[in-house]
Amino acid sequence: MTEKKFTVEELLEKAYKPAKDAMVLHPFYEGKIQTIAKCAIRDFNDFAIWYTPGVAEPCKDIQKNPEMVYEHTNKWNTVAVVSDGTRVLGLGDIGPKAGLPVMEGKALLFKYLGGVDAVPLCLDTKDPDKIIEVVKLIQPSFGGINLEDIAKPKCFYILDTLRADPEVEIPVWHDDQQGTATIVTAGVINALKVVGKKMDEVLVSMIGAGAANIAVGRVMMAAGINPKNVMYCDRKGILGKHRSDLEANKDKDPYKWQVCLNTNAEGREGDMQACMKETDVCVAMSKSGPGVIKKEWVAAMATDAIMFPCANPIPEIWPWECKEAGARIVGTGRSDFENQVNNSLGFPGIFRGTLDVKAKTITDEMVIAAALEIAKTAEDKGLSEGYIVPNMDEWEVFPREAAAVALKAMEQGIARVKRTRQELWDRASKIIKESREITQLLMKENYIPMPPKDL
Amino acid sequence: MTEKKFTVEELLEKAYKPAKDAMVLHPFYEGKIQTIAKCAIRDFNDFAIWYTPGVAEPCKDIQKNPEMVYEHTNKWNTVAVVSDGTRVLGLGDIGPKAGLPVMEGKALLFKYLGGVDAVPLCLDTKDPDKIIEVVKLIQPSFGGINLEDIAKPKCFYILDTLRADPEVEIPVWHDDQQGTATIVTAGVINALKVVGKKMDEVLVSMIGAGAANIAVGRVMMAAGINPKNVMYCDRKGILGKHRSDLEANKDKDPYKWQVCLNTNAEGREGDMQACMKETDVCVAMSKSGPGVIKKEWVAAMATDAIMFPCANPIPEIWPWECKEAGARIVGTGRSDFENQVNNSLGFPGIFRGTLDVKAKTITDEMVIAAALEIAKTAEDKGLSEGYIVPNMDEWEVFPREAAAVALKAMEQGIARVKRTRQELWDRASKIIKESREITQLLMKENYIPMPPKDL
Repeated sequence: MTEKKFTVEELLEKAYKPAKDAMVLHPFYEGKIQTIAKCAIRDFNDFAIWYTPGVAEPCKDIQKNPEMVYEHTNKWNTVAVVSDGTRVLGLGDIGPKAGLPVMEGKALLFKYLGGVDAVPLCLDTKDPDKIIEVVKLIQPSFGGINLEDIAKPKCFYILDTLRADPEVEIPVWHDDQQGTATIVTAGVINALKVVGKKMDEVLVSMIGAGAANIAVGRVMMAAGINPKNVMYCDRKGILGKHRSDLEANKDKDPYKWQVCLNTNAEGREGDMQACMKETDVCVAMSKSGPGVIKKEWVAAMATDAIMFPCANPIPEIWPWECKEAGARIVGTGRSDFENQVNNSLGFPGIFRGTLDVKAKTITDEMVIAAALEIAKTAEDKGLSEGYIVPNMDEWEVFPREAAAVALKAMEQGIARVKRTRQELWDRASKIIKESREITQLLMKENYIPMPPKDL
Repeated sequence: MTEKKFTVEELLEKAYKPAKDAMVLHPFYEGKIQTIAKCAIRDFNDFAIWYTPGVAEPCKDIQKNPEMVYEHTNKWNTVAVVSDGTRVLGLGDIGPKAGLPVMEGKALLFKYLGGVDAVPLCLDTKDPDKIIEVVKLIQPSFGGINLEDIAKPKCFYILDTLRADPEVEIPVWHDDQQGTATIVTAGVINALKVVGKKMDEVLVSMIGAGAANIAVGRVMMAAGINPKNVMYCDRKGILGKHRSDLEANKDKDPYKWQVCLNTNAEGREGDMQACMKETDVCVAMSKSGPGVIKKEWVAAMATDAIMFPCANPIPEIWPWECKEAGARIVGTGRSDFENQVNNSLGFPGIFRGTLDVKAKTITDEMVIAAALEIAKTAEDKGLSEGYIVPNMDEWEVFPREAAAVALKAMEQGIARVKRTRQELWDRASKIIKESREITQLLMKENYIPMPPKDL
């Protein structure tokens, strides 16, 4: 296949166009998400039903039976997008106010792609225990929590603590870990199908050992990749039992030391080049390229190599360089190259399914069910080297994921309600379809004005 | 004038009809408020503006200048409705989950009447210091905080602490105190105009010394009622320096002891009957009637007496009994009697104005400006004994209040932006009008279905 080559300048320019538009359009709209009624208001007498005195009766019903809060309110469909703004996109610790445009954007994606009502909640603290406390305190209003853009290692600590806490009754999700893991795993599953290799046999190099890449590895291993065959590499070299610096730091970052212990059975040492050598799959989430990964390192991988250089805004190595070096399949985080591994394919469908059965948590098995269904959605359309995951506008992926995730929750006994696959699919499709139609209706009727003409 | 008399049974039945409907319609709609896009989504490429990579640019802009969060996000129009569920309506401490239907209802009123995007936030704690902490931590996402249905005396402590804290950058409001005070004060102002008495001369009896009635007194006094001429009465009798029980309890409830010190200059002692004697105005917020206040006590008030028996669902005394006993003007909390003093006339307009100038707090002077404007709105239509405050469907009251409140904030130097009265009125009118039209549009297009036919 042929693929157009871009210069760094062209690609940065392409990445910068949305940034320029964003600076005009953010103040133009003064916000990306709003609230609106979900119930009929025929006249002012209806407020006697929705507010005092009528509302007292549903209140008393919930007081008698707390589970009724799922029937009488929108808790079942509401997710808090919680961030402290300490690791926003590639921008680092910019704080909770500066993080708000991202959290609003996330809330917009939640609603438009998944039909989920999401509330941006940026917290003015960096203390992981305070973040945990706030999440626990706000539980009554929400059906789920989406943690976002929180620095590591505290993001692991926060997620693990909340998932293990018996007082936490609702699912808690960290999209930078679990969401990214879902879609990369889907991509790896399908890429291996295309090249005809087996999950439990392939050798995998992971370039970068940040929150996202560690989570990607964890889910890939749960999905069938053999931990012994996985090698991570950070700035100081390959991870393994030999990394005394990480052992010395294990109280502060136990997660990374755990990776040293669980992976790299062959005890390989060395740099990125050594890490990638003869591996079948390479997933890189390190720093913006190009030139972070060299062409000859890709050439030294196994035959039919699979490359996922995912750094933003520029991948660690150009996709065409990967191909020239012999890689068979390449995916990146960018929408202007083929095989975009895009977080937004994951969380909207996963939460849709989780909320539709009022599940108490989101297990790794539910994440894998989502990855498998994303993979299957692409497979049903016909896999190729240039098409291993669906695009964001192939909207059936979201209700399919929702149904798969919900069925897994039911199977695992953590769902509060039971529904058939067909019911789940119909329900998710209807909710998602309506949320898109309402947006388009508000645009058509000019309640959401169109952007200025030149944008 | 003639007024239809109802039996207790008829009035309870009338109050119970919305309750019956509420039990059917709450599960029918499964929530009263939802989120929806506020910005255009022309196609999936727009997500590169609203989310990564484009969104990074507004983020960086806010990082450089935190005030830009008001331009790039919906913070400026978003209010958290915060409650611990410890004093919900007349139901007492029913907890945060059972309180959620009320907070969702409040959010609905915020949007429909005031065009304000409100988020229900029910907290799983009863500890006032934790409530204060959460409010402070969530500040980055919100333009204001509405405290709701929190038990006394902690509701005073929470409000006063947050209003006094220099780290609190956004307005904090407790509707049960300030909102009720606004509308009752408006009612008293106009009632005194009708009977031709002066604010600073009248004698006032306050039956009940709960959070709402204490706040009503505070605002009325700030608006011109002489504290010396005010007498409160609780279950144990008239408040004053003689109340050694309240003095002994002043560490636990300093607010009530303060009332003892500031009011009742004549040192009157005794029961409710003694409290009301010869007073010109009586505001009662004690317990559901009828028969809590007796006809002969009203007869013993001054000529042209003004009565506000505001208990829910049944006033402390029937309006017609007040009239038979010689009262000239009677207002209650019920929509089926004349002169309803309705909280919903206050907070939507007050927050609209506060948010429209990005004010840092809501002062008592802003509350009084709102009360005066509510009063003036009714006066402009022509006051009478049966019409001293506007009804909820006289929608011009909300933009009028908004403009009055915003101008007062500008005058007091706590507004972040300046606008003219006309600009404020136009802006508030447009925002409120659109929020109503969108609701009606969603109903028309069946995205909000109509209730079952028999309801």
